[in-house]
Formats: sequence, C-alpha cells, structure tokens
Amino acid sequence: MDIHEYMVTLGLQAKKAANMLARASTEQKNQALLAVASALEQQLAQLLIANKKDLQAGEEKGLDAALLDRLALNGERIQGMAEGLRQIAALPDPVGEISDLNYRPSGIQVGKMRVPLGVIGIIYESRPNVTADAAGLCLKAGNAAILRGGSEAAFSNQAIAACITLGLEQAKLSHNTVQVVQTTDRKAVGELITLKEYVDVIVPRGGKGLIQRVAMEASVPVIKHLHGVCHVYIDDQADIHKAIAIADNAKTQRYGTCNTMETLLVAENIASKVLPELARIYQQKGVEIRACKKTLTYITNALAATEEDWDTEYLAPVLSIRVVSGLDQALEHIYQHSSGHTEAIISENYSRSRRFLLEVDSSSVMVNASTRFADGFEYGLGAEIGISTDKIHARGPVGLEGLTSQKYIVLGDGHIRQ
Amino acid sequence: MDIHEYMVTLGLQAKKAANMLARASTEQKNQALLAVASALEQQLAQLLIANKKDLQAGEEKGLDAALLDRLALNGERIQGMAEGLRQIAALPDPVGEISDLNYRPSGIQVGKMRVPLGVIGIIYESRPNVTADAAGLCLKAGNAAILRGGSEAAFSNQAIAACITLGLEQAKLSHNTVQVVQTTDRKAVGELITLKEYVDVIVPRGGKGLIQRVAMEASVPVIKHLHGVCHVYIDDQADIHKAIAIADNAKTQRYGTCNTMETLLVAENIASKVLPELARIYQQKGVEIRACKKTLTYITNALAATEEDWDTEYLAPVLSIRVVSGLDQALEHIYQHSSGHTEAIISENYSRSRRFLLEVDSSSVMVNASTRFADGFEYGLGAEIGISTDKIHARGPVGLEGLTSQKYIVLGDGHIRQ
Repeated sequence: MDIHEYMVTLGLQAKKAANMLARASTEQKNQALLAVASALEQQLAQLLIANKKDLQAGEEKGLDAALLDRLALNGERIQGMAEGLRQIAALPDPVGEISDLNYRPSGIQVGKMRVPLGVIGIIYESRPNVTADAAGLCLKAGNAAILRGGSEAAFSNQAIAACITLGLEQAKLSHNTVQVVQTTDRKAVGELITLKEYVDVIVPRGGKGLIQRVAMEASVPVIKHLHGVCHVYIDDQADIHKAIAIADNAKTQRYGTCNTMETLLVAENIASKVLPELARIYQQKGVEIRACKKTLTYITNALAATEEDWDTEYLAPVLSIRVVSGLDQALEHIYQHSSGHTEAIISENYSRSRRFLLEVDSSSVMVNASTRFADGFEYGLGAEIGISTDKIHARGPVGLEGLTSQKYIVLGDGHIRQ
Repeated sequence: MDIHEYMVTLGLQAKKAANMLARASTEQKNQALLAVASALEQQLAQLLIANKKDLQAGEEKGLDAALLDRLALNGERIQGMAEGLRQIAALPDPVGEISDLNYRPSGIQVGKMRVPLGVIGIIYESRPNVTADAAGLCLKAGNAAILRGGSEAAFSNQAIAACITLGLEQAKLSHNTVQVVQTTDRKAVGELITLKEYVDVIVPRGGKGLIQRVAMEASVPVIKHLHGVCHVYIDDQADIHKAIAIADNAKTQRYGTCNTMETLLVAENIASKVLPELARIYQQKGVEIRACKKTLTYITNALAATEEDWDTEYLAPVLSIRVVSGLDQALEHIYQHSSGHTEAIISENYSRSRRFLLEVDSSSVMVNASTRFADGFEYGLGAEIGISTDKIHARGPVGLEGLTSQKYIVLGDGHIRQ
C-alpha cells in the first residue's frame, strides 16, 4: 500500500464526512456518542482479547512497566471510556451558537456563529482510551477525526474503532466520521501532519519527543503543549497558611502531571517563615529538593540546584526552590524559565497580584490557588483534548470550544453598501 | 550582511520589545500612535521626496501604471495614514479585558484575560500606507511588529518608519516595537516566515502569488485569505426588489475588492423575473456576463461560461451567472466552488435562510445583504489588518481582537485541589 495515497484517501473521506457532520443535529451526534458507549460495554470481552495481544507483543518487545500500564485495558478503564462519552453527550453542543449579534449603523445585524473546524488529526502514543476520548470530543464539536495511535496499541485501537463505527452507523452518521489509521508505518504520521488540503488541525498527545517532532515537521496547524515548568511565587505579603497549603498541594497532589509545580520561588523576607516548614512537609512526602544558595541557608537536606534545574520538568517528586528579592525578580525568573503553562502568586497584596496577573505570559495565571487547578474539568470545560501553551487559536485547557471556529453572520433586509 | 543573522537579531529585538509593550499602558500606546500621526504630517515633504525616489526607480524599471499608482504618496494619502492612526488610538484597548469570570464548584474563579500575541510579521507589496496602518494596529494590540514591504517602496517605507520611530520614542516605547526590515534581499522573507522562536504570526498582504508563497513556505502560523470567489444566491422566494438591488450592489459597487460577488446563482423559478432586469443593469454598467446554458435562455449579450469561470475571482467588471434548481443545488455549487470568503442568500423564506446560515462554511454568511458588507469597518471592528478565510484563530475580517489571544486567569483564596 502506498502510504501517501492511503492518507490522502483518508483525508478526502474525512473531509466529506466533516461536511455532512457539520449539518448533523445535536440529537444525532449525542445518539452516536451514547451508542459508542454502549458498544464499548457490550464488547468488553473482545476489547480485552485485543488488548491482551498488544500487551503480549509489548512484553516480548520488552516495553517498560509504566508503558505497559498505560497500554493496559481492564473493566474499569473500559467503563471509564464509556462514562467519558456519556459525559460528552451531556455537554451543550457548541456548534451553531450565535453570539454578539448587534445592529450596525448601516442597518445590518452582524454576529458570530460557532462552527466546526473540519477535520482533526489526533496523534497519540500508547493509551488506547485516547481513541474513544478524542473521537468523542471531535464528534461532539462536529469535526471528523483521523486517529493515529501508537503501534503498541494497534489491536486495542482497532477494537475500539470497531465500537465507534458501530455507534456511528446506529446514529446514521458516516463511518468515515472517525477513521483510525490502519497502518503502523511511521510514514503515516509524516503524511498526516502535512495534509494541508484535508486536515485543519493536528493535536498530538504524548511525550515531549512525539510533540516536538510533530510541531517541527507539521505544516498543518498544531494545538499542543511541549512541557509544563510551572512556578509558584510566595510573595512576602502572602498569608503563610495559604502559602504552605498551596506550595504543598501544587507539588505533591500528583507528581506526573503537566500542571504540577516544578519550581518554587520565595520572597526573601518571608523565606524564614515558610521554607523550614515546607522542607519538613516535602521531606515527609519524599520530595527531593534542589535549592539555590540562599535557600540552603534556610533548609537542610537539599541538593544545590544547577542552572539546568530551572528549566526542568521533573514529573517526579523533585522540586527546585529559589529565594528571590521580591516580585520583580520572580517575574524575571518566570520570564526566563517558564514554559508558558501555569504560574501562581501567593499574596495578599492587591497591586502585586494585579501586576502578576497582567504581566505573566502563561496559558493560566493564578492568584492564591494551586497550579493543579489548570485543567479542563476544573475550569468547567466539561472535558479537554489537551492543554495548549501556544497563543494562536486555543490557549490553556482546550475543550469543545477549542475544537470549533466562528464565522460571521450578517442579517439584512435588502441592505446594500453605500 | 548575513540575512539569517540579521533576521534573528530583528526577531530577538522584537521579542524583547513585545515583552515591554505587553505591560505598556493604554495611554502610552495611544500617545505613540498620535505622535506617529503628527510626525507623518510634519514630515510630509521628506515623505514625498522619498516616495519620488521610489516612483522614479519604478518608472525606470517599467512598473505598470496600476502598480505605480499604488506606490504613489501625496498629501491626501499621507493625511489618510495619519487619520487612520488617530482612529486606531480612539479604539478601545483590547489588552487586559477580562471576560467570563465565574465561580467554579471548587471555589476558584476562572476567567479569561485578553493578551497580545507577541511578535507579528507583516509581509506586503507596494502600498507604503500599509507600513503605518499595520504598525498602528499591531501597536494598539500590544504586539511588536516586523514589517517587510515591497522593494519598490523601500525609500517610502524607510521614511514612514522614521516617523514611527520618532513617535515611539516620544511615548518612551522601544524603537524596536516596530522594525522595518532594512534589506530588499528576498531571502529576508523566507527567514521571517520560519522564525518560529521569535515570530508568533505572519500576516501577508498583497496579491495571490505573494500569499500563496508565504502560506506554502511558512512554519510560523499565517493569517491570510487567498482570494474571494463570493456568491449571491437568489432564492425563488426572494423579494425581487431586494434581490436586484443586492445583486447589482454586490457586483458593481466596487470591482476590485475581495468581497465583490463573482458568481450569481439564481433559482430557476424566479429566473425570468430577475435575470432580464439584472442583465440590463449590468450591461448599462459595462459588466461582462459569463452565463450557464439556462441563463442564456433568459438573457442576451452574454458569453457562455466555461468550467473555469466558476472558480475565478475576476476582480473586474465580469460576472458568472448560473441558474440552479433551488437551494440544494446552490449549496452544492457553493461547496464546490466557494473560496470560503463570503456568500449571501436572498430569500424571504425562514427555513431556507436558516439552513443557508448554518450550512455554508464561509468566513461570512449573509441573508438579504450585499457581500460588500464583509469588511472590518462595516462589522464594527474599527479597523482591519486583513480578512481570514482560514478557520484557525481568526476568521473573517481581522481587527484588533484577532491580533490578541486569551489566557486563563484563576482567582482563589488559598484553594488547593482535592
């Protein structure tokens, strides 16, 4: 099979399906989502058999335990996928929403109508649940999807795809609405991300390596974030109780997430009041500290931080801490080292909080809250397909709205331009 | 001079200036805009001298009259630039606008704050006024700009740039806020559109050739429209008076604009009532008609349309006309041939108008109004940097808002994630 031709065929089919889907009613899309959810539950046995094939192949290939865990399906995880689809069905349909419809001096009414993007390519790694999640979000937002999962999950993804096809057919939607790439040839990714004529946006989900490669080589627009080096700055006018609770939560509530704090900045004037207590908490929880020289004068049991630490996303129980003179130095540090994901200030000072909100150029900027809140569900988006640290199109957690665009609508009564 | 190094230097300087500008007050930005406007008026003599150099060189190179006209400055055009900048100064500042700030069940408040995109690269052809217009819009939206105009306008652009620098300095903003590329080497464009690390978006302005080249080769996101093949569909339930007025206006109010109608679709049942009258009007105004076979049974003095006509943006007193069976065939024709710019239906039928609004996938979709309204000023954007027919980020006329992004802000009171 010629990969280029194959991908162009998928693209063409997707574009045609997208054109039909854009006109599908909310009810029809929801029917499809619910039908896929039921199919997943009903075909649990087949899904587990397919998954076992992937797991066995993975073990033979010597994949590590973490990867095998991400790859594994079980009753609970399949139930989770079905539940996720039902939640997406319950969300309001973004398509067709009309906003800002106002009369202009010429007499015409001008407003905006939310419309699907068209065709979305999703490139992901070994988690098979992404197949159902991503398909569900794209479908609800009226977009056709082309899904390219990791080759390790090929059997699982095909089995999930079969459930999706079933659901689409039950709702009388084209089976090309969601297509799973049927080849594990890596060239397929290169084709997908340059299929400008048929694909409107690419969403890569996975490790930094995958995302970097996709971002570098794509000519189709990409919604992505590379990594999250999130900062919390404890101002010297912080409430100490809040500061300690947030600095604890932002690091230790979960270690492997992109919104976890990786660097703590502490104003010099408050360092002696918060650092010893925080060091005690972190030590208790097994968090390794990489500290600047000044920090080392307040705490023991810490390593000296290197320059590299300030740019590292640990995704692990490791934290770098730096004592700064105040807000200006904190902002400067964030400007130099932030990945543009999420930063928080802990302060009771109005003017400094206001400055921090305005001046920090990240996808989420917070006052007196844990960076762990940077999440589509916490923000009320209902679901998220990813978090974007870019500025074009979507920024921060990307939900259904981020998978749509807006066109202008004009209502007149025979109006002509003078 | 090494072009790559030079462009990287411009990029670095722009990024630094953008970081400063993002924090500049509305007043400071407006001061700069007004100071540039005054400088343009005060340096009228120098601008005309510089422009004369370009015009003389252009004549020696044998540029055609239309191009020389676009290149030419005079008192009125310079006054127009100054006036445009004063209008931009009078527009509300989009930066810092907070919207949708709501409490979430966790207790945090989540909202969005409008922020500048960062650095915008503008690539344009021979119109020197773009230098002032584009610089003004970028500046007001808090973005640094790198401007690359056509080599034919090099002296004029430098003279305008000198006025911009003067204005920026008077408002105590960095002169790197707006940089004009100082080389006419074409390699500079190739560098600018791939400067991913420093440039956030590229806006090409000019002919289809330029825009196609930029879109093809850019790795930086591009806000663009290639061409406008705009359609008006006269439904058989149209008000005949409105239909004729709009079909006349959409074609003849101006011929050279991208929102001018290029193809008229007429429902068969109403063709005999509108086509003869329209043909009379068009003939009177010197509009050449390229007609489908059916159309030719209603009118005389028309050429037979070829397949190519349905995809052609004439930008001239030429119009293609096709008789269709009704709405479905009109939608199908638009789906096949539209450039995604602007389409209008003329109808008194509620359900058909509603379907047209939903189903036509163009940046502007209209009911009973002339396509000529598709314009930033008519839509109330105050000014426009261009019209986008893409779906990512900005669609339709792009004003100040299209030159910004939104970040999430989270306000808490010591909130941590459970």
